[in-house]
Amino acid sequence: MAFFFDKDIEKTEMDSRSSRKVLAHGRDLMACHLYYEAGGTGLPHTHMNTQITTILSGRFEFTLSGDTAVLTSGDSVYIPSGAEHSIACLEKGELIDVFTPEREDFI
Amino acid sequence: MAFFFDKDIEKTEMDSRSSRKVLAHGRDLMACHLYYEAGGTGLPHTHMNTQITTILSGRFEFTLSGDTAVLTSGDSVYIPSGAEHSIACLEKGELIDVFTPEREDFI
Repeated sequence: MAFFFDKDIEKTEMDSRSSRKVLAHGRDLMACHLYYEAGGTGLPHTHMNTQITTILSGRFEFTLSGDTAVLTSGDSVYIPSGAEHSIACLEKGELIDVFTPEREDFI
Repeated sequence: MAFFFDKDIEKTEMDSRSSRKVLAHGRDLMACHLYYEAGGTGLPHTHMNTQITTILSGRFEFTLSGDTAVLTSGDSVYIPSGAEHSIACLEKGELIDVFTPEREDFI
């Protein structure tokens, strides 16, 4: 099945201030929708998957390989395979995370 | 540069009813934001890049390898490398297209 319908997708609580939907995925590519309350964080981590994060709403502080930027709607970050990154939500918001290949730990 | 800021990104008109921003890209991955007016179309085409399309708003008829579905906010489609696909905008809206590897013809 190549179509993925929002009505069929469960939201997974990551912690008390963040949750995630896996929107669509296959071997080569995965898209996720993340929801953060202010104060929510993604602690520094790495993975072999290349990632792009795109902010839909809210305000986030993003750190990639030691560089930090404040991102708002329409801003993005490209995260090469193995690069350490973290996020802190400054104002409640949503973002899209995409990965290649798919994050097998999310399914 | 791994951060991409919306204020620096130009919108490219694809035709009179659709336009595109390349949000972020690197060798392995690209994210684009597309804007459609009702009646806008993406005619049937193929490419070697694997793609996910996620609808942000509006209403679209999407055809993938002969299967058609109507997609609205939060719905997605996973398009394997080489699979023929097309889109027709039924109600004005926006979507995110992601590709692996990046679409070199977009940059």
